[in-house]
Amino acid sequence: MKQYRAFCFDLDGTVYRGKEAIPAAIKFIRTLREKQLDYFFVTNNSSKTPSQIKEALLRFGVEASEKQIYSSAFVTAKYVKEHFGQAKVFVIGQDGIRYALGQHNIHIVEENPDVVVMGIDRMITYQKLAKACLAVQNGATLIGTNEDIRVPTEAGFQPGNGSFVKLVAQVCNVEPIFLGKPSPAILEMIRQGHGYQKSEMVMIGDNYDTDILCGIRFGCDTVHVNTGAVSTEKVKEKELQPTYCVQDLSEFEL
Amino acid sequence: MKQYRAFCFDLDGTVYRGKEAIPAAIKFIRTLREKQLDYFFVTNNSSKTPSQIKEALLRFGVEASEKQIYSSAFVTAKYVKEHFGQAKVFVIGQDGIRYALGQHNIHIVEENPDVVVMGIDRMITYQKLAKACLAVQNGATLIGTNEDIRVPTEAGFQPGNGSFVKLVAQVCNVEPIFLGKPSPAILEMIRQGHGYQKSEMVMIGDNYDTDILCGIRFGCDTVHVNTGAVSTEKVKEKELQPTYCVQDLSEFEL
Repeated sequence: MKQYRAFCFDLDGTVYRGKEAIPAAIKFIRTLREKQLDYFFVTNNSSKTPSQIKEALLRFGVEASEKQIYSSAFVTAKYVKEHFGQAKVFVIGQDGIRYALGQHNIHIVEENPDVVVMGIDRMITYQKLAKACLAVQNGATLIGTNEDIRVPTEAGFQPGNGSFVKLVAQVCNVEPIFLGKPSPAILEMIRQGHGYQKSEMVMIGDNYDTDILCGIRFGCDTVHVNTGAVSTEKVKEKELQPTYCVQDLSEFEL
Repeated sequence: MKQYRAFCFDLDGTVYRGKEAIPAAIKFIRTLREKQLDYFFVTNNSSKTPSQIKEALLRFGVEASEKQIYSSAFVTAKYVKEHFGQAKVFVIGQDGIRYALGQHNIHIVEENPDVVVMGIDRMITYQKLAKACLAVQNGATLIGTNEDIRVPTEAGFQPGNGSFVKLVAQVCNVEPIFLGKPSPAILEMIRQGHGYQKSEMVMIGDNYDTDILCGIRFGCDTVHVNTGAVSTEKVKEKELQPTYCVQDLSEFEL
């Protein structure tokens, strides 16, 4: 493996799978830490705050500071701040996106918003969706933290945030803005925040359509690990290939 | 207008608009009644029972028996009975579809269904959708009462049943079965139930994609009225034209 300065990891399917750690990944990250190489966690999950994600990682034996955690919630809040700084925002979502918007001093409202921000919300209701639809029809911009149609669980696939954002978009006949992977926005934030060159960064993940495409669109190297949602076999069928395809991260020496 | 034996009316946008009656339609239906011509109401709304729809029509001054009311709930329940008679069915929906399935002695369950039936449900939750998704991934057949993406309200468009059925279908990567308009199933039920020829029937409605296409697919004459969701102008752009396009039903003499 080429020497990189910044290692960007997806979480579920890459560092852990549901409630189980993936040992090769945990070991790899520990070695990065010992060698004082930079690593980051890049997740489309907007439901958790950085502090909640940090705690979850610690339970798998991975030490990380909140500053090493980049979620779709954070990048979405930053985007809203930069493009709609003074706007009134109606939010569908859980802790993570609400916390991130709060950190960016976004003005959250229930009525007459200029922007509708949607993150995964397991308490979603018809009324929330109808409210989002009416706001968008009245001219509000529709922003989704991420476009994942489905999320893997131990029982099977459940609806992802993208499926609800697309529902609203279809009812209103608009194109939503998505900030999470595969949008390169998160990797660009990491690059800008730390002054890396793209050639010094690598994106590591199990999901081709989110993780690998994110790295490819951003323009850094990518590693596909065969420990999660999408098999190496399926990845081999894609036109744009990752830089590396491995079973797991034990194949690399640092 | 040609002489027909059976007049099939859409409801919202055709007989009334929200809470207001459409006078030309009410008068037309009264004349049908005086002349003892048959008329039926064909609605994609699966949330109300025939008795609730009958009461609603009466408030607009339209007399109809429950037997003249054909909803997507009724045709869906009949389809489930015929194709999955002994099956266990998980239902997302309101009074109308639950009543119709009950009338057909369908076995409704919460766990391990063979069929998932979805009608509009303004109490829909993430948990109900997730349950439907897992059931379909485990092999259950996905049936929607109707495929309407949006429903018009006085405030604007809100999500229709089709938008939720398509969400589940997309998460599970399956093709759902839809029974309401524009499927010709309801008109076929009316024809079979009363022994009409297709040439003796006419479908009257404001919505091209549901009402008019339903008549065209079934193979009867169609009347587009310019009193609802889709304007005559928009209808004129379509490749398949209705038999008649009118402002309202006062243009016809019976």
